[in-house]
Amino acid sequence: MDISQTGAWRALEAHSREAASFNMRRMFEADGSRFDTMHETLHGFLFDYSKNIVTEETLQLLCRLAEAGRLKERAAAMRAGEKINTSERRAVLHTALRLPADAAPVMVDGENVVPQVHRGLDRALAFAESLISGAFLGATGKRITDFVHIGIGGSDLGPRMAVQALEPYLKKVRVHFIGNADDSEISHVLKGLDSETTVFCIASKSFGTAETLLNAHAARAWFREQGRAEADIARHFVAVSSDINAARNFGITPDHVFPMADWVGGRYSVWSAIGLPVMVAVGESRFRQFLAGAHAMDEHFFTAGYRRNIPVLMALLSVWYGNFLNADGLAVAPYSHGLRRLPAWLQQLDMESSGKSRTTDGSPLPFRSGAIVFGEEGVNCQHAFFQLLHQGTRLIPCDFIVPMYTPCRINRHQRFTVANAFAQSEALMRGKTAEEVYAELAALPEAEREALVPHKIFPGNRPSNSFLFDELTPFNLGMLMASYEHKIFVQGMIWGINPFDQWGVEYGKALAKTIEPELNRDLPLHHDSSTNGLIAHYRKCSAERQQ
Amino acid sequence: MDISQTGAWRALEAHSREAASFNMRRMFEADGSRFDTMHETLHGFLFDYSKNIVTEETLQLLCRLAEAGRLKERAAAMRAGEKINTSERRAVLHTALRLPADAAPVMVDGENVVPQVHRGLDRALAFAESLISGAFLGATGKRITDFVHIGIGGSDLGPRMAVQALEPYLKKVRVHFIGNADDSEISHVLKGLDSETTVFCIASKSFGTAETLLNAHAARAWFREQGRAEADIARHFVAVSSDINAARNFGITPDHVFPMADWVGGRYSVWSAIGLPVMVAVGESRFRQFLAGAHAMDEHFFTAGYRRNIPVLMALLSVWYGNFLNADGLAVAPYSHGLRRLPAWLQQLDMESSGKSRTTDGSPLPFRSGAIVFGEEGVNCQHAFFQLLHQGTRLIPCDFIVPMYTPCRINRHQRFTVANAFAQSEALMRGKTAEEVYAELAALPEAEREALVPHKIFPGNRPSNSFLFDELTPFNLGMLMASYEHKIFVQGMIWGINPFDQWGVEYGKALAKTIEPELNRDLPLHHDSSTNGLIAHYRKCSAERQQ
Repeated sequence: MDISQTGAWRALEAHSREAASFNMRRMFEADGSRFDTMHETLHGFLFDYSKNIVTEETLQLLCRLAEAGRLKERAAAMRAGEKINTSERRAVLHTALRLPADAAPVMVDGENVVPQVHRGLDRALAFAESLISGAFLGATGKRITDFVHIGIGGSDLGPRMAVQALEPYLKKVRVHFIGNADDSEISHVLKGLDSETTVFCIASKSFGTAETLLNAHAARAWFREQGRAEADIARHFVAVSSDINAARNFGITPDHVFPMADWVGGRYSVWSAIGLPVMVAVGESRFRQFLAGAHAMDEHFFTAGYRRNIPVLMALLSVWYGNFLNADGLAVAPYSHGLRRLPAWLQQLDMESSGKSRTTDGSPLPFRSGAIVFGEEGVNCQHAFFQLLHQGTRLIPCDFIVPMYTPCRINRHQRFTVANAFAQSEALMRGKTAEEVYAELAALPEAEREALVPHKIFPGNRPSNSFLFDELTPFNLGMLMASYEHKIFVQGMIWGINPFDQWGVEYGKALAKTIEPELNRDLPLHHDSSTNGLIAHYRKCSAERQQ
Repeated sequence: MDISQTGAWRALEAHSREAASFNMRRMFEADGSRFDTMHETLHGFLFDYSKNIVTEETLQLLCRLAEAGRLKERAAAMRAGEKINTSERRAVLHTALRLPADAAPVMVDGENVVPQVHRGLDRALAFAESLISGAFLGATGKRITDFVHIGIGGSDLGPRMAVQALEPYLKKVRVHFIGNADDSEISHVLKGLDSETTVFCIASKSFGTAETLLNAHAARAWFREQGRAEADIARHFVAVSSDINAARNFGITPDHVFPMADWVGGRYSVWSAIGLPVMVAVGESRFRQFLAGAHAMDEHFFTAGYRRNIPVLMALLSVWYGNFLNADGLAVAPYSHGLRRLPAWLQQLDMESSGKSRTTDGSPLPFRSGAIVFGEEGVNCQHAFFQLLHQGTRLIPCDFIVPMYTPCRINRHQRFTVANAFAQSEALMRGKTAEEVYAELAALPEAEREALVPHKIFPGNRPSNSFLFDELTPFNLGMLMASYEHKIFVQGMIWGINPFDQWGVEYGKALAKTIEPELNRDLPLHHDSSTNGLIAHYRKCSAERQQ
């Protein structure tokens, strides 16, 4: 089905022409109850979407679009374990990873996955706790002080962000990450480690991710160079993978391979054993709270009506801007140093899921799908790219994510930060007219005043959402992350794409395999002249070095 | 002058309709010399722009646009110290900060600034070297081990990025940064410090930046709580500021205030005394190499003809995509862990400079200006947002920044990383046709093969630039950063905006001053219902906490 041929889509197209005259400042002035009807709360989490270029009619039309996209039905199919990732023929069950142990069965290929999820979770948590308590010792009998997680993409961004975000809850074992194939990262991490007290975790669903194996072998070589025996590898290397044999060939005992089901996508995997670094960092009870937060958002998503459903509203607004008002992307501004890598995590989650130009049945998409997602921690972002949000020529909605309290509780700092987040959404929405600027500049000579006015005008009417929560607890982090996961699912269902595959990442990897040996051997080159030229330049630099 | 009314702009509009049929893969096949005519080298730096949706005619038309924008004249005006930042009535002379001591005079308000630049530079470098050598001791006679730079925005992003990038050149004094007003950052940094061996640097041109003063006062309070005397502040706090009196009131001796001229904009200030953390991190000779690299790019920019001018070509391509081919933004992928914060630095540089919707004379811009700039280190980005670049529905050019060598020199890692960067630009350009995919999937049953083909097609024809250099040395870092600075200047001159002001950052700050006291006092609220609602929610959380 091409959703752009439905009445709901056409109604939005017509409505979007009216929307050119919508003005949020006037709408707020005309309707004192706008905030009341356009915000939702859930377990202390507040989602304010009243500062958007929408009327109640827009929201109703968007809900009709959700209806036309058979959203309820599709969400139910995901929840029930149907193979909605059609191009890879897989179920999509990150929500099952967050179910309580006594939840109703979720059947995949005739098997209830809930007990399997909890067996895996209990095993991974028990291992994490054994590192924390010191019950698990290194090969030379020493307590483990450092845990190094080696993974990339989905095996890296979620856990890395979550460990940073939960810094106030950290336990004793230091957790490090190695992602990139640039050797600076691994060199930097290894420098500070003691091989007798370090455990490495190799996180790769297939145990075949090139970068991860490169780093795993480098870590293994380092471990041996530090004087550790080959036999000690079994004690100091563990894996998160669905390929137990490949892990065993590396020297890891099956007891220390934590499996991943095939229905867990990489970018949704922090809730699975890929979350092991989070478990080691914050311990069992905090990790269970993290899962509980995500589950609370799942329950809301699966049960609330469209008009009051937080992830559904997030997605519908995004479709409204992207497909009807020509927005270029989404800025994400977490006013929280702990959440400084949330935008990077979200970039993968959204852009890898939504960067598709074919529908699930293979037809070309007749409209635009995913857009750029970017962001930096607030208040820093105010001093960086916010100029363009306020006075630029492009429509870029912004998500403000604002914990009311920081763990350190320097009161002035915290109020300053929160006040700035609120003020930015106010400024973006209100704008400042030529008359207002003119009045402000009363102290200047007339000519100067006239000249300066245009530069200090703010067009306003620039949309944002605000997400408020008490403090960045594991529970709240879980809710926040799950809300974006479901948002991205909803967008995908409306567009009719498969948000769960990522064929676009394969081609470049394959080409790199051709190029790599060409760099240091004098093989004939059959690429375009640019790629040939780049390889030749590398060879030239390389030859100069070797002289 | 409205450049969109010139013949050059109209010719590009007409040409852009032809460009819909340009296909890079076919152009490379048809012209074996494409790389030869579309790359430039400079001091070992290679800029390959052949993988762009352009013909030689496009480039000629773009050069005509540069002509129409009187680019040469404007660049000369900047270089000569004219007050081209008209709305703030200031000269723009970051290029003067990189001039050799014996350079021809650059006159501002009747004074040659070159000797003044070198006096400032020598003083800052001498101070940095005195920390490194141990000639400068703390108040209790101990050697300084840690240097904490407190600044935000332009006083933070450039130095923070440069210190990371130059990690292999680090000397003895550890350098830390505190930017955000979120107290988590300052708490984290202070935790690891000894007040007797730490020097704090307060970096704020006006000595009035709210976040910086908040952190400066918190650092000062911490210093006193650690048992240090009030009199010791003069030995442990220094400033980079143009307001010596304000710094003195804080307790800083004039000898330890490193001035900034008013013609240095925040986002161009890493070359000034704001670069003090870089000087302390890598020492005098490396810092001078960093300046020399930038100066080499300046010389090239000011002298090369448009058609062979690296920053001019970068900017013209960006205008081509943004104004004629409807691009949404620019992805920046440094294949270098050291450059992981380059995108954040560039975000401010570009989006704060280009996010304007008025021409310098105050008229509304009749076309779009700055776009989203975003990015992450490669290869990580391949596992995050590259799916959307390859198979999404939007045009997003990409800059690949690729050092040939990493300092650590694990050979396999380095070749893997370089091969991947080259392969990504090849894949984006070439794409993969339905026929090619079909042939690849020969092993599958026919129905499955047919179903999978559309999902594995890559449209190709997606543009990128590649920047290659031998290694991430101070000189190469300087060249790279300066090339982007000039690119952004050129864009701005073509659009006719002022890329040197940033009025858009003021409004939100002012509104925050109203909101902050409202958060913890029961004042009546006069905002829109959303902002009122957010403040009320904060008060409610706050009241619950206090119970």
